[in-house]
Order: sequence, then C-alpha cells, then structure tokens
Amino acid sequence: MYLRNVWYVAATSHDLGEALLTRTILELPVLLYRKENGDPVAIGNLCPHRFAPLHMGKRNGDSVQCGYHGMVFGESGKCVLNPHHGGVISPAMKVPAYPVIEKYGMIWIWTGEADRADPALIPDYSCYTAPGFRTLGGIMDVAAGMELITDNLLDLTHADFLHEGTLSSEAITLSKLETIEKGSAIWGNRWCPDGVAPPVWGQLMDSQMGVAPDTRIDHWLYMRWDAPAHLLLDVGICPVGKTREQGIWVYTGHHLTPVSPTRTLYFWTVVRDHAPQDPSVDAFWQGSIDYAFAVQDKPLIEAQQAAIGSADIDALHPVAIPADAAGGRARRALARLRAQGTKGECPVPGASPLAELLRQSAGSAAPVQPVV
Amino acid sequence: MYLRNVWYVAATSHDLGEALLTRTILELPVLLYRKENGDPVAIGNLCPHRFAPLHMGKRNGDSVQCGYHGMVFGESGKCVLNPHHGGVISPAMKVPAYPVIEKYGMIWIWTGEADRADPALIPDYSCYTAPGFRTLGGIMDVAAGMELITDNLLDLTHADFLHEGTLSSEAITLSKLETIEKGSAIWGNRWCPDGVAPPVWGQLMDSQMGVAPDTRIDHWLYMRWDAPAHLLLDVGICPVGKTREQGIWVYTGHHLTPVSPTRTLYFWTVVRDHAPQDPSVDAFWQGSIDYAFAVQDKPLIEAQQAAIGSADIDALHPVAIPADAAGGRARRALARLRAQGTKGECPVPGASPLAELLRQSAGSAAPVQPVV
Amino acid sequence: MYLRNVWYVAATSHDLGEALLTRTILELPVLLYRKENGDPVAIGNLCPHRFAPLHMGKRNGDSVQCGYHGMVFGESGKCVLNPHHGGVISPAMKVPAYPVIEKYGMIWIWTGEADRADPALIPDYSCYTAPGFRTLGGIMDVAAGMELITDNLLDLTHADFLHEGTLSSEAITLSKLETIEKGSAIWGNRWCPDGVAPPVWGQLMDSQMGVAPDTRIDHWLYMRWDAPAHLLLDVGICPVGKTREQGIWVYTGHHLTPVSPTRTLYFWTVVRDHAPQDPSVDAFWQGSIDYAFAVQDKPLIEAQQAAIGSADIDALHPVAIPADAAGGRARRALARLRAQGTKGECPVPGASPLAELLRQSAGSAAPVQPVV
Repeated sequence: MYLRNVWYVAATSHDLGEALLTRTILELPVLLYRKENGDPVAIGNLCPHRFAPLHMGKRNGDSVQCGYHGMVFGESGKCVLNPHHGGVISPAMKVPAYPVIEKYGMIWIWTGEADRADPALIPDYSCYTAPGFRTLGGIMDVAAGMELITDNLLDLTHADFLHEGTLSSEAITLSKLETIEKGSAIWGNRWCPDGVAPPVWGQLMDSQMGVAPDTRIDHWLYMRWDAPAHLLLDVGICPVGKTREQGIWVYTGHHLTPVSPTRTLYFWTVVRDHAPQDPSVDAFWQGSIDYAFAVQDKPLIEAQQAAIGSADIDALHPVAIPADAAGGRARRALARLRAQGTKGECPVPGASPLAELLRQSAGSAAPVQPVV
Repeated sequence: MYLRNVWYVAATSHDLGEALLTRTILELPVLLYRKENGDPVAIGNLCPHRFAPLHMGKRNGDSVQCGYHGMVFGESGKCVLNPHHGGVISPAMKVPAYPVIEKYGMIWIWTGEADRADPALIPDYSCYTAPGFRTLGGIMDVAAGMELITDNLLDLTHADFLHEGTLSSEAITLSKLETIEKGSAIWGNRWCPDGVAPPVWGQLMDSQMGVAPDTRIDHWLYMRWDAPAHLLLDVGICPVGKTREQGIWVYTGHHLTPVSPTRTLYFWTVVRDHAPQDPSVDAFWQGSIDYAFAVQDKPLIEAQQAAIGSADIDALHPVAIPADAAGGRARRALARLRAQGTKGECPVPGASPLAELLRQSAGSAAPVQPVV
Repeated sequence: MYLRNVWYVAATSHDLGEALLTRTILELPVLLYRKENGDPVAIGNLCPHRFAPLHMGKRNGDSVQCGYHGMVFGESGKCVLNPHHGGVISPAMKVPAYPVIEKYGMIWIWTGEADRADPALIPDYSCYTAPGFRTLGGIMDVAAGMELITDNLLDLTHADFLHEGTLSSEAITLSKLETIEKGSAIWGNRWCPDGVAPPVWGQLMDSQMGVAPDTRIDHWLYMRWDAPAHLLLDVGICPVGKTREQGIWVYTGHHLTPVSPTRTLYFWTVVRDHAPQDPSVDAFWQGSIDYAFAVQDKPLIEAQQAAIGSADIDALHPVAIPADAAGGRARRALARLRAQGTKGECPVPGASPLAELLRQSAGSAAPVQPVV
C-alpha cells in the first residue's frame, strides 16, 4: 500500500538534536537522534527483547540504551552492549536501521530496501538553503491521508473559498490549469493575469513592491509534485505585464509523510528572497501561512477524511472538475509505481536544480516563467 | 435496519434559523437551514466533488456554497453555480434533498422515498401549538439506541426508583398497565388512584390546585406511541375522585431520532395549560423535566447500552415482567414494519387530533379519560 | 483464554464497605459489597430485566435494589423482591453469584465452577496479617495484560534501568537468576552479594540498620509466583556476610486481576517487620513503592502493550535472555493449565505457610534463606 523505496521527510534539521525523537512513519515505530558529531540516526524504536519503546530509554554515547533492561543499540541497529550476567549478544539482538540523510535542512528517511537508498533520488529543494533566501516552516499532525492533502495542494482553486482573508483570489478560480508530466513529476500551473492581489500578498505590495495595494497584478502559482508526496509551489505577484524581478514571490514546500492511511505528518516551508533579513517579514509569513494551513486547510481536510472514513475516495465516485486534473495525474502516477512493486518503485525527481532554473528565468517576460 | 419511510424530528423550529445546522440522521449527513422566506431546507451535507461537509461553507441566498471549491447547491440539492473556469454543471453535481416540513414547532424530515412523504403521516402533536397551552422543551444527545429509550418511556414504573425526588410514586409501581394497540399506535396507560403526589407534582398542589401537598391524589399516566419513535404522555394529578379540570396535568412529548443504532437525538417537550403565562412555572417545569431526563434517565440508559454493546437486547434473553408489555408491543410493531420492507413501512398515526380529544374529555369522570 | 477455576483478588478489605463497588473481572461485570455483618458479597452487576448496572441502584438491607425498576437481589443472586403489581418472582430473575472469601486483608473471588471454589487454593499471604508486621498497599488500573506485568515482576533486572533513584542496583543486573518450579509455583531468586544499596534501601540504612549508607551490602530478591498471577517478593539488604536479622527487608505482594486481555487491576502491598509502628516509615515505603510502580513501571508496561497491540508477545518472536527464564516458566505453566481445560485448571499453591517459613529461616547464614 505504501511506497517504501522512496525518501520521506522524518524531521527538520532544526527539530532533531541529541534528544531521542520518536515518529511513526508508514506505521513503523522509528527512533531518531543525532550522534555526537551531528550525524542523524534512524533506527527501529522497539527493543527486540520485550518491545519496550527505546525513546523511553536514554542516550549512551552514540548509542541508545533501552530503559527497561538496559540493552544498548548502536546506529547500525545492532546490540552493542548486554549489561546482564554473561553479557552474551546474539545476532537477533538488533533493531532495524533506516538510511537517513540530512539535506536542505530536512532529515530524509528511506524505509525500503536499504541498498537502493540513493541520495540522488531526493528531489531538489536546494532553495531551502540557497544563498540570499530565507526559509521558515512548520509541522502539522493531520488526521487525514496524504492523498487528500495532495489533492488540496494540486488544486489551488480552493484558495478563493477556503482561504478567505489570506490567499483568496477570484483570478485563481477563473484561471486555466496547465498540467505537465515529466518522469514521475507533475506540474499543475496557473497563470492568473490582471486581478486583485490575494489579501496576504496585498499587505506586502507597498513595502516590498512600492506600489499601492489596489494595483492590478498578475498572479502565478506553479506547483511541482514529486512522488510520493513532495511538493514545491512557486507563487507570486507582479504588477500587470511586469516580470518576476519587479514582483514578490515565495516558494512554499510541502512534504507529506504518512503515519497511517488516515494520518499524515505535514512539513511545510515558506522560502523568500525579499527582505530575507527582516524579522517582521519573517513573522508576517510565518503567521500567515500557519493560519492558512492550520486554521483554514487542516480542519476541512480532516472533515473530508472523517466523512469518507477508511474508504478510497475514488471508490465513492466523486464528481470531477477540470481543476482535478493534476491531482488525478498524481494518483495515477502513484498507482503505476505501486503496480511496479518493489522492483521499480523508486521515482526519479522531475526537476533540474532549482537554483539553476531560477538563474535561467531571471528577466523572463510575462507570463512569468516557473522556476521549479 | 432503519425505517426510512417515516417522519423523524430533525430540529425544533426554534433551533433552525439562517445558520447552517448539521445533523447525522439514520447515519446520513444532513444539512438544515431556513430559506430567506423562512421555509426549512434539508439536503445532504457532503459536497459530491471531494466530500467536504457543506456546513463548513456558507449561505449564498437560498443556496449553500461549499467552503472548499465554491460549488453552490440549492434546496433541490442540485448544483446551481460552478464558479470555476468554464462553469460547466454536470447532472452528477448534486446532493440528496430530503422532504422536510415544519409543523407543531418541529422540523420533520423524511429520508425514505420522496414521493411517499405524505404530511398526513406526521402524528398529531397539535397540543404543542394549541391556544391556551405553553410548550417548553429540550434536546439530548443520548449514547443509546432509540429502542432502549422507548422501553424507558413505555414502562413508567421506573419512576419510583430512578426518579427519586422528582417523578417517583409507589402508586405507579403498584398500578396495572393497560395496553391498547390501534393501527401502528400503541398506548400504555396507568391509572394510579389514591396515592401520594410525586415530588414535582406536590410542589404545584398549593399554588395550582389550592390544596395541601399531602392531599391524597389520583395520578394518571397515559402514554401514546406512534411508530417509529414518537411518544406523547398525558400525565397529571387531581384530588381523589375529582376530574382533570380540578387537577393539574401536562403533556410531555418525546421524539427519538436515530443517529446510529447506539446513539439517538432525543427531543422532549412539556406542554401545559396551567399558568401558561407564568415564567416561574416555566422555570419550574423546564428545570424539573430537564433534571429528570438528563440527570436521572440518561446516565442509566447509556449504561444499559454500554452493557449490552452492539447486541440486540432481545438476543440476550432479558427477563420480562408485565410492565414490559407496551414496550414489547412497540418492538413487535417495528419488526412488522421492517418486515414489510419499503413497500409498506409508512405507519399511519394512531390518534385523532389532540385538541378534539381534549375537548371531548372535558368534564369526564374519574378515572380521568386520556386525551391522546 | 482466562483461567477461571482460580482465585483472583477483587478488592482489598479496606476498600470494600457498605457502598456498592463495581469491578470488571475477566470481562465479567461484578458487584461487590459487604453485608451488615461484614461478610463480602460478589454478584453479577447487570439486572436480568433490562441489563441496568446494579451499582447504580442502592443497598436494601443485605440485598441490592436495581435503580431502574426496583427488583431486589440477594447475596445468592436470586431476586428476593419484585415491587411491581402482582410481585411475581420467576426463577429467571437472578444474577450470577460468585464465591468470595476475605483472607489476608484481601477479597478473593472465584469466577469458575462454584463447587470447586476451595479456600485452600488461595496462596499463602499470611504475612499480610501476621503479628509484628505492617502492611501497606495500593491499586493500579494498568492498560496492559497481566502477562506483561508478570514478566516485569519475574525479571527484576529491570531495576537498574527503569527504577533509577529508587530500586536501581547494578548488582541485580550482574547477579544470576535461580529458578525453581514446584507444583504450579515458580521461584525466580537472585542473590546479589557485595554491592551498593539501591537508593530506597540506602535511605533506611542509618536509621534501621545503624550503618552508613555507603556500607557494602548483600541484596536478595526472592520472587514467588503462584498461578495465575499472585506474586510475593522477599527482598532486603544486610551488611556483607551478615544475616537477615542484621539487615532490613520487606515482602512486596502483587496480585494481578485481568479486566480484559489488555487491561489489569494490579493490587500491590509492602509488608515489613522493621519499625512497624512508625508512621514516617509508613509514608516512606508507601511513597517509594507507589512512585516505583506507578511512575516508573506502569508507563513502560503500557507502552509495551500499545506497541504489541492485541498480539501475543511470543508470536512476535522476542529475543530471549537468561533473565527471562522465570517469566518463560510461568507462561508455560499457564499454557499447561489452559490446555487442561476446566477439568484440571485449579492450581495448587506452591508454598508452605509463610510464617512457618520465616521462623525456619531465622538465624540462617548468608546467602540469606528465602522465606516464601
């Protein structure tokens, strides 16, 4: 059911430290921590002796000691110390060890076949740590499957209805969706010319663009999806007919890590190149996106999940509209990957390095070129 | 399992306004609201596009706009506006529409075959809105199936044990139950002569009857049941050997609407012709009945349901006593209606108009004649 | 699944009084109370009429009156009064009656075949009420099956890791486990010579033994298990090479009563012969053991149960260590008893009377002789 030969985000770099952090990922109990040299470790969280959760134990150098009977497990998952009389360590005294990589300010985990855990399969999110950019973010524990959240992100026409006062825009609703599929990546792009700025964007027009908030703008939303559940939105506004450089824009990143079929850890980011050093702009974006995602999106998506229960939404025969095209493509792509089984399910990221794309698009004419 | 070709109470007239009200009725998600002209509307609460609950959206004139992607649904359940690019409305863009009638201060809903939704099948509760009467009431969300609540109401001998300090009366326990069955209605009547007034009634004897609280009284409880779960109790006291007109009495109405097999919305009323304009008598009855039902009945009925779980109580071989006769008849009547299937399950109310019955009984001799 | 022809602890003598006490024991709803002469009674808690829980009713002399319709049930479980019109009592008007015995300050219940409820099958806990001893205790409602708690008690090497600051001792971890099996009793004994006192014991060395807290000590832990889930630990310390009489020691008793396969009532005691009249020593032991069991053991055992869910732990192929030997023997003993079915499942207690054993061991040389 789950794709396993793929990278998921297990934690942010910021959230992972010396302390023992436990996560349920694809229903697996996982323990995460940093070694003394800072490298991240991910191993199974249940002691093989009596299944006590290791996060209830404690650090022992770069290893972890079970809090029940004291067996110590290292980063390889193998028992490295049995403190009991005799001290025998049998080969069965081990927990799983998961390949884990720290990149782009995120801790990426691989729960599939370890020898296929190729770091090159991590999609490009170099914008998170690119010079001149500022990255903020958050994490939400959502009582809904990753599919419903993916639908939400691949159909941004919900903005005008669900994001009143934040991201709402009639121009989005009236725009046409362009979908592109390349390898295992899918783009759902909207070019929304000559409209009114969404409220959040309107609040930045004076200070960041030097124009009045009621100035007519072009609005773009270019969403890239990489299987199984990594999304990057290039979104911004510029005065009608102007270029990206004369406007303001952000990337928002979205990484969906299944806890179970109906629960998801949702890591989000907002990345900008305007006023990257200004704490008041930090607070503005952190608060605006947190409100839009946690207060506006989350309750509705959870209500959807509660309404459909454990059913697959497609089995309930939903009515389709053209705006569903990108989400539908993503579902079909996942179905194809699942059908391949573990022989072929490693999806190849769809995009070239972001920084390169951004350089290419500099100075592009309207419609603003996507940079993802 | 559920009878559907019947009327249930979905809300009180008082509780339904412009705001979107959601109810789960017979496991169906229902949305209720009033149109601008005041007429009630009941439609399915889940948008057919992505199953977002419509009550999370907003009113749009006499229609409702989904809060996720903005489709608008009218009182017929059909989509009347698709705000998206192109604006195509397909025939599948619709939610169920349920026949709904406002009568007797209640909103009645029909979840079965719409063309059989005959308003004449609503049982007579004209007393709720009859001139000279005052009606109060409440609603309880009970964690028990409607059958256990019906049992409670059709066997009022529980009063002396469960309603200590409120409705308790040894005379009820010692009285004989008379059951009458007519069409799909069942009466469970008790005439309890020459006893002590139950505590609640005793508190009204001085002010409303002009006699001392320890005066011996005749007590009557005449309960009418109409399938599937509408009950009306004609209950009162008068000095021994006197008539209804020399006593005090009320109707209490009970409408049980299944949420699921083990959860019920319980609408209750108390209707009186004594001191109908006196707010202190309002407060007395509202508080007394609310206490008796919510504090005394509800926890015990919920404990019963918890004890039997999802089992049918009859499959557990309960010990029967004569007081169960009316409840047993009601269960058998429901079983017959269920066995008929949707061809014949519309039960015909059992009683003539209440106001007419009340007029007929005026001046009747003891035992006081029932007026339901 | 449950052994039924055995004695379980249903309550402490202290907790049982005139008030109606309800317990779920082996998934059975049980009502407990004392008669006016003080004798304990245990009957089924659900009225056979409509399955209302009897604990919501009230005492009626030595009987209990259902709070719903007033039927009265006596200690035999039979209905002794039907207050309704006619007052007929049918043979079916009864609830189960369970053999119950008060002994050693505990109320013991038998839910199996009543004619096999032999008081001689109650294991010996005479220390609880022996002259010169002081007994304290508590009860915990643990969200884990009795097997996981039994494992905890039969492998005390968890002390050094889970009981930091209370019962921790490296000497226990390094000690050898001696297991003895006799009839249906199993001993798991540890003799831990020449170590540092566990913190709780260290706090008593000055006042109760007259030696400095850093004096090297011998530590013993002799645990007796009687099927299905009664345990008694003889645990103490004495200066290296000295005898029990020159040290301090306690019994701790453990009685595990299944509520369900994954929930257990855990009755514990601590029994001492040192300073039996000193309230400050009462407070010390009550607080220390309560902390060790409720704050240190309980959360870990509950996390184990949550991790393994409804699975049998052995089906998950846990890694075994020598310290598991006693627990493994107990599991096999239970399996044998279950395999016998109800013909033979009555386990015979394994020990001679405790007081006698204690007298025998008086003056024994190190290693200190067990007295259970």
